[in-house]
Amino acid sequence: MTEPTWKKNAAAKREEILSLIPPEWHLPQPLPSPSDLPCVTGKEIRQYLSPMEIEITETDAVGVVQKTSSGEWRCEDVVRAFCHRASLAHQMINCLHEIFFQAAIEDAKILDHYYDKNKKPYGSLHGLPISLKDSIHIKGVGASMGYVGWLDTFEGKRNTGREKVHESEIVKHLRALGAILYVKTSVPQGSFSGETVNHIIEHTPNPQNRNLVVGGSSGGEGGLLALRGSPIGLGTDIGGSIRVPAGWNGCYGLRPSTGRLPYEGIASTLDGQSSIPFVVGPLAHSATDLAFIIKALLSRQPWKTDPMTHEVPWMDDQFEQIKNRFRGSGERLSFGVLFSDGVVNPQPPVVRALNETVNLIRSLGHRVFEWHPPSHVESLNIWRDICLMDGGNAFHNALALSGEPPTPTVFGSRPTTPVDAREIMKRNIALRDYRKRYLDFWDRTAVDALITPFHQGPPPPAGKVRYMGYTCVVNVLDYPASVVPVTRVKKDIDKYVEGYSFLNHTDKLVYEDYDGDLLDGAPVGIQIVGRRLQEEVVLALTEGLSHELAKGRHDTRL
Amino acid sequence: MTEPTWKKNAAAKREEILSLIPPEWHLPQPLPSPSDLPCVTGKEIRQYLSPMEIEITETDAVGVVQKTSSGEWRCEDVVRAFCHRASLAHQMINCLHEIFFQAAIEDAKILDHYYDKNKKPYGSLHGLPISLKDSIHIKGVGASMGYVGWLDTFEGKRNTGREKVHESEIVKHLRALGAILYVKTSVPQGSFSGETVNHIIEHTPNPQNRNLVVGGSSGGEGGLLALRGSPIGLGTDIGGSIRVPAGWNGCYGLRPSTGRLPYEGIASTLDGQSSIPFVVGPLAHSATDLAFIIKALLSRQPWKTDPMTHEVPWMDDQFEQIKNRFRGSGERLSFGVLFSDGVVNPQPPVVRALNETVNLIRSLGHRVFEWHPPSHVESLNIWRDICLMDGGNAFHNALALSGEPPTPTVFGSRPTTPVDAREIMKRNIALRDYRKRYLDFWDRTAVDALITPFHQGPPPPAGKVRYMGYTCVVNVLDYPASVVPVTRVKKDIDKYVEGYSFLNHTDKLVYEDYDGDLLDGAPVGIQIVGRRLQEEVVLALTEGLSHELAKGRHDTRL
Repeated sequence: MTEPTWKKNAAAKREEILSLIPPEWHLPQPLPSPSDLPCVTGKEIRQYLSPMEIEITETDAVGVVQKTSSGEWRCEDVVRAFCHRASLAHQMINCLHEIFFQAAIEDAKILDHYYDKNKKPYGSLHGLPISLKDSIHIKGVGASMGYVGWLDTFEGKRNTGREKVHESEIVKHLRALGAILYVKTSVPQGSFSGETVNHIIEHTPNPQNRNLVVGGSSGGEGGLLALRGSPIGLGTDIGGSIRVPAGWNGCYGLRPSTGRLPYEGIASTLDGQSSIPFVVGPLAHSATDLAFIIKALLSRQPWKTDPMTHEVPWMDDQFEQIKNRFRGSGERLSFGVLFSDGVVNPQPPVVRALNETVNLIRSLGHRVFEWHPPSHVESLNIWRDICLMDGGNAFHNALALSGEPPTPTVFGSRPTTPVDAREIMKRNIALRDYRKRYLDFWDRTAVDALITPFHQGPPPPAGKVRYMGYTCVVNVLDYPASVVPVTRVKKDIDKYVEGYSFLNHTDKLVYEDYDGDLLDGAPVGIQIVGRRLQEEVVLALTEGLSHELAKGRHDTRL
Repeated sequence: MTEPTWKKNAAAKREEILSLIPPEWHLPQPLPSPSDLPCVTGKEIRQYLSPMEIEITETDAVGVVQKTSSGEWRCEDVVRAFCHRASLAHQMINCLHEIFFQAAIEDAKILDHYYDKNKKPYGSLHGLPISLKDSIHIKGVGASMGYVGWLDTFEGKRNTGREKVHESEIVKHLRALGAILYVKTSVPQGSFSGETVNHIIEHTPNPQNRNLVVGGSSGGEGGLLALRGSPIGLGTDIGGSIRVPAGWNGCYGLRPSTGRLPYEGIASTLDGQSSIPFVVGPLAHSATDLAFIIKALLSRQPWKTDPMTHEVPWMDDQFEQIKNRFRGSGERLSFGVLFSDGVVNPQPPVVRALNETVNLIRSLGHRVFEWHPPSHVESLNIWRDICLMDGGNAFHNALALSGEPPTPTVFGSRPTTPVDAREIMKRNIALRDYRKRYLDFWDRTAVDALITPFHQGPPPPAGKVRYMGYTCVVNVLDYPASVVPVTRVKKDIDKYVEGYSFLNHTDKLVYEDYDGDLLDGAPVGIQIVGRRLQEEVVLALTEGLSHELAKGRHDTRL
């Protein structure tokens, strides 16, 4: 039996990606197996880097821009360091779909030249390397979105004149701000899974424990950041695709409301499904970096070139005011905390992260009470009904281009019949009604934000991402939400209570999945949710909380 | 043959409306025929009113609130005057679907009591009567939306517990601001036509010339305002339904962007069609009144109770700045003017209105150039494809409730097959792509606003509303747009050039329809269009232009 063409094409692309890594950056020998060497972050990757490369790549985005904008670091040195580290990362966890180091280095030289001539930075992201999820289009670069059939096409179509020419609006803004693009990161097949697996790069594991998944769909971003192969990245999110990989990699992430950042010109499996659309947002090493890039992007007035972006400028007053209030100056804040959505209970480390967060917030004088909102089960049904309105048609058409089968964990792998306009209208009404009831509850309780799990557990092993309800509800509501790393699994204290009683079959599986020995040390975080279009509130609280958590880590009382 | 039940039910409702008019407000004798007495505004209606009633009802909304808020006028006197005049209006042009004078007078008494006790107004709309289009729900009041089958139901459904209990969010805000509700106004069957005809009130003609149509779908609003039976009203707009009846009645109207004002809880034939949704907005006697009510409503933070309303507060700085610039202080403004969309050319009075507007704007030092945007034909196809996605299913289901037939001029009167999700996604992509191209054109030309026709002509006779393209394109783009009255038809100067050559068959019909003798004196206006969510810019220009036009009317040079 001959190998099918799609396998050959996928393998060729896989080889091509590797071939774009300069030989001097190749790993000297193959890595040990994940069971022998679960974690490849930290010293495991640093050993291949110079001290200067380590210093550069372990600086967060704000720090990088401070150095490049003061002339202390050359953009070329910065971008070379990240290209090197991203190359190593890819060899360790298959996290890159596209590599274009040469173009990046050329861009860096132009920026250095600009700085030499003008003695000032080109823009507010001068010389900052930014990694992008594969669904974001860049001139001169392909975009497969994990579909073998999309290779060498424009979103599956040939001879459109847009192949490797079209550029997403957000990329144009990044360039105008002086950012440097150098890699695109791996996604699940069609970008529609909580695990990053496709037939091109195969599998992106979690670099902190390669026996666990990296998350998805912006999985390559999460993994690359954990390995510090990028100072900051952009992902997309329709059901948790920014937040889950950010949180499972010990990073920060923001899912903005629809229309806050420009999605114009970014690929999507469900293009034209406008009821619960994908949004684009950052994954970063710090809360400050999240706010930094949002502020920079909004300074570009993206509503002038994206018809779906609302004219809502960055509101610095609100951001600073909430930060001050969180710190304790001014009126106290009010938080709802969701310990369980009643569908799947969080595993013990997540419960501890919630409790630690609540205690910390209360210790600052704020009010925290248990949040019992309209049923989250209903939100999940709405999410599924809307995201599957086309019966998986677009997804299966994309597979059919190459003949590749669906990967096992992809969402909507069994095609159904597309529903008609009458049914879609009903679903849109159900969506709006749910949002209305949730908003009314929010209004009555007058909370400033919610603290919730972003997932019921730390990253599980492959095949065990059983439930994404804690992130999906936010997409249904279209609220902004961030993920904040809080702690790490401590196998000795993170244990289920004896006699734990399951909510249902899924909850039982999640309970049975929990393996403290396997998960020990894995990142654990929480989600902060704000009211629609209140990105400033969420970002201010994210920064405030992360600041207090950092203090706590050096504070023996906690 | 016995009369069908729907006819009986419609007639009973028609009688019920009339029965709610107190006998002392009945017209002493039937009106002469429209051919004998075309116009019923001005002295024709004033003859039945006291001087005080005339003074009150011919004061605009801002003026009314000034008087009620200073205690100069009692709310009860104000509301009684408008109830009286609205009663006369209804007897002249069938413009009311619901009358609830008693509740209004009770509300006025409460407000007067509040004022007496507190020596201050209850809210920023203290004692202001506001008429509402029938699709807006008010507690204690029905809402047929022109469907016989919706009478005594909640949007066609029985035993929902919401019949005459549910209230649209915007109504709650109006009450909280101290406004008084007293009537709901007539709409076409299902609110889906440019002519206000249904089987309940039958036909609402244009009060300035009852041989012409009043416009639609907020037709009762337009007619009631022209007769000064209301100081200000709210309508809804999916393809021109606020702007056309405002303009054809010599009034001002604003179609805001989606998400600027709360549509939550308002009825719609196409509920759940969320690609080009209905929006709610004001019809008024002055530009100042439009801004006044928008500002008042936004002060209520409607995003806290409507999940689809964006958190975009009123931006007074922008509003004042644009007003000043329009007057000539500060940087000059830049306008695109659309003399024709290439589908149907405007009739001569509209061409003159455009020219007069352009000359006036130029005389203030601003830049005006001809606007040649992406094809408007394409926008119309997109509009139709999206608004008919359900094949007219919702509309025909509503008719089927009573068995009434479609009225002749209603949109989508022939049912087709609802399209499926794949097709809807294609249409949503076409919509976004069109918006993107239009926005790019806008961005390149860097205009502040557009001056366009809102319709190709003044109000035509029944059956001759041939084309709504000049308003529909705005709904496709989701831009804010106002209508400004500019002039009136002057039969001696408003003539087609000799040898006029038609663009197409519709354009030929529009040309042939034009009858200067019939239309002489009919209102003629233009449309001001701004970029999405720039309501402040559009309202500032509307106020500026109307101010300059008023000056011009007393200026012999023009």
